[in-house]
Amino acid sequence: MINRLAIIGVGLIGGSLARAARRAGVCREIVGGGRDEAQLRRAVELGVIDRYDMDIAAAVRDADMVVVAVPLGAMEAVLRRIAGQVSPGTVITDVGSAKGSVVAAARAAFGEVPPGFVPGHPIAGTEKNGVEASFAELFDGRRVILTPLPNTSAQALATVRTLWRHTGAEVVEMDVAHHDEVLAATSHLPHVLAYVLVDTLLGMDASEEIFRFAAGGFRDFTRIASSDPAMWRDICIANRAALLTVLERFRAELSSLTAAVEAADGESIVSVFSRAKAVRDRYMMLNTETRNLKPSENE
Amino acid sequence: MINRLAIIGVGLIGGSLARAARRAGVCREIVGGGRDEAQLRRAVELGVIDRYDMDIAAAVRDADMVVVAVPLGAMEAVLRRIAGQVSPGTVITDVGSAKGSVVAAARAAFGEVPPGFVPGHPIAGTEKNGVEASFAELFDGRRVILTPLPNTSAQALATVRTLWRHTGAEVVEMDVAHHDEVLAATSHLPHVLAYVLVDTLLGMDASEEIFRFAAGGFRDFTRIASSDPAMWRDICIANRAALLTVLERFRAELSSLTAAVEAADGESIVSVFSRAKAVRDRYMMLNTETRNLKPSENE
Repeated sequence: MINRLAIIGVGLIGGSLARAARRAGVCREIVGGGRDEAQLRRAVELGVIDRYDMDIAAAVRDADMVVVAVPLGAMEAVLRRIAGQVSPGTVITDVGSAKGSVVAAARAAFGEVPPGFVPGHPIAGTEKNGVEASFAELFDGRRVILTPLPNTSAQALATVRTLWRHTGAEVVEMDVAHHDEVLAATSHLPHVLAYVLVDTLLGMDASEEIFRFAAGGFRDFTRIASSDPAMWRDICIANRAALLTVLERFRAELSSLTAAVEAADGESIVSVFSRAKAVRDRYMMLNTETRNLKPSENE
Repeated sequence: MINRLAIIGVGLIGGSLARAARRAGVCREIVGGGRDEAQLRRAVELGVIDRYDMDIAAAVRDADMVVVAVPLGAMEAVLRRIAGQVSPGTVITDVGSAKGSVVAAARAAFGEVPPGFVPGHPIAGTEKNGVEASFAELFDGRRVILTPLPNTSAQALATVRTLWRHTGAEVVEMDVAHHDEVLAATSHLPHVLAYVLVDTLLGMDASEEIFRFAAGGFRDFTRIASSDPAMWRDICIANRAALLTVLERFRAELSSLTAAVEAADGESIVSVFSRAKAVRDRYMMLNTETRNLKPSENE
């Protein structure tokens, strides 16, 4: 049982976590904090949180646990406000889509990353934002990746793990660099490609007709280009190193494929396409078996 | 009323067209032709066609209308078999995803493209192949693009248009080069990107974990990488020029975006992402209003 849970940033993710924690009956009081007073007031009206304080230092005071659910670009500033306000026993976690940058922000804010700080990332979201869009079931059957550091306290890790389990999520652990590499590949790169594709077509003479004649495949392929631009700018910058690594690999492969098309080299083309189809089909099967996948933006 | 309709290649598209034509009651007899006798026999059993002939020359004999629904790679060989077997009044059309290559194949096969030849492309399909997967409703509410040439007979064009209208499709006209440019952008490039992305991730050390942790966004983004590799090799080669043009534009934009990520230039990143989101949202709205989009492979 958490006596007082402070959630900084009560939007889709923070709000859904608050609702899920309430549903599970695992905390006595939930205090919200953040910059957007209208959101915080609405969160109280909706019963998502019990009260709020615009002053982050006050919002986290005497909390047993603090969840930072703000955009990556605001992470360091928020952690600086928290530092010095919490006791060494306070458990702190976050929900950022890139973990190396959060660890660096915590190091900058606290001097060293406190043992009570457990970096985390729920792989869940919808294309909507804000506390109005939050719901208790958001994490049901989804994965939450925790990336503890060597000095992370086992007790803090267990507490964060338990909270997420209560939301219905499956909790897995990964090291920070590995998380950032996997997410760069499966989420950050696809978002970049979708945005760049749509923007490329927009720049073409026939763009109006192009969008008019785009059908189902294009619609699915570019759905993630409807995601929040500022959030994804933050993610691209926060996970820059891992994203650049996978971008370089992708660009090299695309360059080879372009050369194969130029040369009408059907054998090379079909070998890339066949390998991709085989693994895509196998992966789809695996994922259909193990979980109910919902469209998710905040990956 | 078509007295005898010959369909060369009775797979998903050819079979669905036969079923739709039957449903509409617009032809007396449907004769199948092609290389795969098992498919053709099954098509007769399913009542999709009345009879078949493995000899294409025989299959098209005395037909009022011939529909060539074979992969692009087989187009020229099939048209060569048809040439000389049909009367000047016979209407011929095809369903290929690239039109410049079909026109070139017709020119090679016939000497010049006959006035009765109307290149066409139904923007419809599913991820399945073969006559077993065919169904009469495949073209309902979908678009069919016809790309007549300056010497195309108005009567032939009207006949093909009428047939497609009877399947429930909306028929539009476009010139050959324009069709190929629009499809390269909205269909062929996205397929290439999806295949190359999946193959890139497959080549990474963490690939197993990458596919294990891929969630909803990735699933949608890469769905088209489950499409038939040989068919898409043919399309990439057949529409090589238009595909290379849009590939070059995409690669240049991706290179700029990569530089912006390297420089942590948030302003440039967010301006690309915002433009893309705005047009994607607008386009989605447009398409939701005007048609019921179904996932489609054969675009």
